[in-house]
Amino acid sequence: MKKHIITLPGDGIGPEIMNSAHELLKAVGEKYNHEFTVESKDIGGIAIDKHNDPLPAETIEACESADAILLGAVGGPKWADSKIRPEQGLLKIRKQFNLFANLRPVTIFDSLEASSPLKQHVVRGSDLMIVRELTGGLYFGQPSERRDGGQSVVDTLTYTYGEIERIVRTAFDTAMSRRKHLTSVDKANVLESSRMWREIVNKVSSEYPEVTVEHELVDAAAMKLITNPSYFDVIVTENLFGDILSDEASVITGSLGVLPSASLSDKGLGLFEPIHGSAPDIAGENKANPIGMMLSVGMMLKYSFGLHEESAAIEKAVNQVLADGFKTGDLQIDRAVTLSTTEMTEKIISVL
Amino acid sequence: MKKHIITLPGDGIGPEIMNSAHELLKAVGEKYNHEFTVESKDIGGIAIDKHNDPLPAETIEACESADAILLGAVGGPKWADSKIRPEQGLLKIRKQFNLFANLRPVTIFDSLEASSPLKQHVVRGSDLMIVRELTGGLYFGQPSERRDGGQSVVDTLTYTYGEIERIVRTAFDTAMSRRKHLTSVDKANVLESSRMWREIVNKVSSEYPEVTVEHELVDAAAMKLITNPSYFDVIVTENLFGDILSDEASVITGSLGVLPSASLSDKGLGLFEPIHGSAPDIAGENKANPIGMMLSVGMMLKYSFGLHEESAAIEKAVNQVLADGFKTGDLQIDRAVTLSTTEMTEKIISVL
Ligand SMILES: CC(C)[C@H](C(=O)O)[C@@H](O)C(=O)O
Ligand SMILES: CC(C)[C@H](C(=O)O)[C@@H](O)C(=O)O
Repeated sequence: MKKHIITLPGDGIGPEIMNSAHELLKAVGEKYNHEFTVESKDIGGIAIDKHNDPLPAETIEACESADAILLGAVGGPKWADSKIRPEQGLLKIRKQFNLFANLRPVTIFDSLEASSPLKQHVVRGSDLMIVRELTGGLYFGQPSERRDGGQSVVDTLTYTYGEIERIVRTAFDTAMSRRKHLTSVDKANVLESSRMWREIVNKVSSEYPEVTVEHELVDAAAMKLITNPSYFDVIVTENLFGDILSDEASVITGSLGVLPSASLSDKGLGLFEPIHGSAPDIAGENKANPIGMMLSVGMMLKYSFGLHEESAAIEKAVNQVLADGFKTGDLQIDRAVTLSTTEMTEKIISVL
Repeated sequence: MKKHIITLPGDGIGPEIMNSAHELLKAVGEKYNHEFTVESKDIGGIAIDKHNDPLPAETIEACESADAILLGAVGGPKWADSKIRPEQGLLKIRKQFNLFANLRPVTIFDSLEASSPLKQHVVRGSDLMIVRELTGGLYFGQPSERRDGGQSVVDTLTYTYGEIERIVRTAFDTAMSRRKHLTSVDKANVLESSRMWREIVNKVSSEYPEVTVEHELVDAAAMKLITNPSYFDVIVTENLFGDILSDEASVITGSLGVLPSASLSDKGLGLFEPIHGSAPDIAGENKANPIGMMLSVGMMLKYSFGLHEESAAIEKAVNQVLADGFKTGDLQIDRAVTLSTTEMTEKIISVL
């Protein structure tokens, strides 16, 4: 297979973990006989510094002809007070390429039990996937502005029927490939958009008679994620609820650094990134955990290229290295050896 | 002291736990020489059944002349498909009486360690107060409606400068009476309302030089609440973020049934209620945990009547009864005896 991948290393630890992705792609290509070509472009803070634009036209153009996009991380204190913010690059690329379906698996590695703030019996058996709508809601609704000379302010939560329907369908399809249990999260006792969301979920559900569907209010879901995470299979929700709940859910495993994500468009284009941030405090120190990035490469192989075997091999290699007693500085594993970013990358590749 | 209290038992277990509040008020009144008169009115589902209105005019009138309001719980499956929903009674009373400041202490009882989904070393030392804005934001913003014949939908997040300023001030005052550490939670990298919120927090902070202030994004806060709850002292946030985060935070202690809340207006009127719901599954079985309600009475004594000693005595009695090995069915305490609602109420009153 021949594929062209645009990499967007971004800021902070982004470039370091993107190196891990390069190494991994080279290794997978050699082992399974694929030709992955890789081209690097700017996004985020570094793009502001170089082009005065967090998502330069050059980056957009390159992505347009890509088979998939890998992203490191954006942002950092350097741009905290700048008028244009690095995160705008991320929001713009999502909107530009219609990356409406954000998939965030919360994977439990047995060896990371000590890293979780939750008790072992609570976490046990958890395996959930959050399907977050990524291009609508309060993130992009207009107006979003000050009024009355700064005496009031307004943001707008909008969705079209079609926007809700397509993410709900993605969630049902995801549930069909898993344990067929879908939890739709909303705030239907307050928001009109949530009541429409609920109606659409109920309507689409008739096309998926095998999937058990239920509705949960966002406040109740925020509780249940912690008291009973293994209850969930697939969770589908709107953009901002998804932002909050997926970050919350990530702590279940105690290992933000190991979690990947995919953002998919209806045209088949996908952007893949670890869910952690740019970690400016450890940038350049060869300490960052490359696992979230490497598992994001795994998601790319599976979702964008249909390479299920290769993707599974990466997951298995990560599992094995952790179980063998190796970790990075952010993880807690009893008696495990702490590796650098490059060492961990090599170790995982060596057991592929 | 002479005070007139309106009680709104509401639905499900509401009436049972309101009985506990009555007993407690009688006991406190006798012991400390206060005259508490109590008058019961309808709200929620029962008010829909009786008056076709979740907040009848009669209830509003009674509350207008009250010194404080106690609320049980509203809602239940009986009204799931009704056009008027019981929760609207709650939203309306908040708006009607300008109950803009929702205070939710997350109290840790050592004896409830086994009930928490979090590891002991994570929970240890946690003691936080969430100050949630309760009468603005997406809850009340207009328009909130379907458009284009149902092809799209809109909800509106609005705040005035004054609405943000007054809740921020309440939060700073709260921090001054505690450990002087305030975390303001927003989504300033996306929402204009959050950017205004942040500016106002920064402006008001100059009046409180002793308070350490910081800003946290809502997704990061949702993580930190679980990974490091003892980090927080006072959290201030807008209505919907506060709804989600305060429910999330409540699980830290593993004991939803024991947590109280206060909703205060700028005119000094307060409404006090446990944070748990109407629990229709155990309604009428004398099984409900009365502690959240009894501690809400404690908050009323403190915040509305300035009775600090009486309030502290209730907290102390609850602590002692739990430490002595008594619990209700919702709690996990090793080797503790399970009591009914009425037994637990009597037990707490007996050690006042
Ligand atoms: C950086 C920020 C704008 C972004 C979001 O809120 O979507 C991030 O939190 C995420 O979840 O990818
Ligand atoms: C019942 C509901 C409308 C309410 C809210 O969202 O405010 C509840 O969840 C709460 O937190 O008091």
